[in-house]
Amino acid sequence: MASLRGTQQPELSKKLYKIIKSENHAIGAYEAAARERQGIAQQLSEWGESTGDETVSEISDKLGVLLAEIAEQEDLYAQALEEYRGVLKQIRNTESSVQPSRDHKTKVSDEIAKLKYKEPQSTKIVQLEQELVRAEAQSLVAEAQLSNITRQKFKVAYDHQLTATIERAEKQAILAKHARRLLNLIDDTPIVPGDAHPAFAEEEAARQVLNDAEADLRDYRLEVEPITSNSGSLGVGAMPGSSVDSSVAAQPTTIDQTPTRGFSGEEQRYETSESSYPTTEAERVERQEPVQQGVPTAV
Amino acid sequence: MASLRGTQQPELSKKLYKIIKSENHAIGAYEAAARERQGIAQQLSEWGESTGDETVSEISDKLGVLLAEIAEQEDLYAQALEEYRGVLKQIRNTESSVQPSRDHKTKVSDEIAKLKYKEPQSTKIVQLEQELVRAEAQSLVAEAQLSNITRQKFKVAYDHQLTATIERAEKQAILAKHARRLLNLIDDTPIVPGDAHPAFAEEEAARQVLNDAEADLRDYRLEVEPITSNSGSLGVGAMPGSSVDSSVAAQPTTIDQTPTRGFSGEEQRYETSESSYPTTEAERVERQEPVQQGVPTAV
Repeated sequence: MASLRGTQQPELSKKLYKIIKSENHAIGAYEAAARERQGIAQQLSEWGESTGDETVSEISDKLGVLLAEIAEQEDLYAQALEEYRGVLKQIRNTESSVQPSRDHKTKVSDEIAKLKYKEPQSTKIVQLEQELVRAEAQSLVAEAQLSNITRQKFKVAYDHQLTATIERAEKQAILAKHARRLLNLIDDTPIVPGDAHPAFAEEEAARQVLNDAEADLRDYRLEVEPITSNSGSLGVGAMPGSSVDSSVAAQPTTIDQTPTRGFSGEEQRYETSESSYPTTEAERVERQEPVQQGVPTAV
Repeated sequence: MASLRGTQQPELSKKLYKIIKSENHAIGAYEAAARERQGIAQQLSEWGESTGDETVSEISDKLGVLLAEIAEQEDLYAQALEEYRGVLKQIRNTESSVQPSRDHKTKVSDEIAKLKYKEPQSTKIVQLEQELVRAEAQSLVAEAQLSNITRQKFKVAYDHQLTATIERAEKQAILAKHARRLLNLIDDTPIVPGDAHPAFAEEEAARQVLNDAEADLRDYRLEVEPITSNSGSLGVGAMPGSSVDSSVAAQPTTIDQTPTRGFSGEEQRYETSESSYPTTEAERVERQEPVQQGVPTAV
């Protein structure tokens, strides 16, 4: 089914369609990894308790907390990839919608050539040549729209993905480094039969590790070089907007803005406030832009 | 099948058996994600070329290189988890091997109780009580071995896992940060129909990004607080070694040592030089430790 549907995609959007499908598999894999890891964190705590060794029990329980949070970051990463994938779809949809105007131009062109060969005196040729001019104008618009959308959304899409990669990386590194401190609270000096390990005296230190990890995660701020954009003036027809908007666009705007979250499961969203063009009448009015109905402003 | 085998595990090792199985699924998920991502990096480069937009083509190709390297780090992470999983198996195997001595002690104990009730004068009771003393001695050894192995290997196992997590995180963050620089080389100023974007003039800058990323990855050194171990004197029978060895063990040894690799696909291995007890006759001789055949050194 999936592969059959793939072949039904217009030629122009086939490659991106494939990428979007592959990313779906990748996201599924990250979700599965996160799920397994969350389960393992729980199992680890239960195993530690079952050993009857107080030290192992305490440390495995605390370690489980940090491993569960690492797994949670894996899941948030998968969610962020879903947003990036959504932006790729916007490019693909534009690709799909441009295909007919390419096809139409080619068709009219072919008809003229055929007619000139078969019936060189046909009055229909003049008519078709007029249609070709219109088709070419339409195609020029479509190709400009595609180019504008592709460049803008390409930057937005990979800004999303790379931001998510960096955030997952930095948060998991924080958590893993604290988790290592827990391991050093285990005294692995071997004992002889009949002896027991000294009672676990590091409860306080172990609890402090969790507190420190939580604090570090709460204080975490993503610091990345912003992605600049000049697409601020992109109007409703994916064409440059009015001159007023162009002056705004002359100052690159930052399209990156990612809020962070604490340790306690507040919802996190990788958000990018795109400098997008208005898509509804209301938005257009709000921005006081001239209404453009996909008509070229200069041909 | 898999779940049936699970139920055949001795009670003592069931929980760890489950964790080892879940980690296998998690590793499979990471491998799948790495595979998909490597494919996507290639597809992205091909898509960029097909757009006919020189800027998009150049940047998508270079971005693909960095994304493929990020995927490669994902795969190395999966390999490192395999090593951690191997250490968990060592604990599980010890758990499995300790089960029979627990069972035997219980069985002899039960037999004595039964006989004392049924035939209180039976001479067999004395015989069984002697056997119980032996069984208890054996069990004490087994439990000490289990405790020693569990603590030591628990530290080693999660040292592996957390080191791998940190290394993946730090390397992917390096790569993703450089990849963001590529995005800023795309001029997304919208064009009007009939116009074309200026020719791409950032080839040099784009190439420099790849060079910088490669150099940073090559210069990368993992810096983590070492995990200490006092298990250096652990002898062949998972018992404390001779007094000579004990003095060695008094100084905690570092069990963490992870070599790093460059950008160009040299093999990387997450290695931990464990301060492990010798397992072969040759190793024992080399370390000049007294041969211990699983006999308690003090009961």
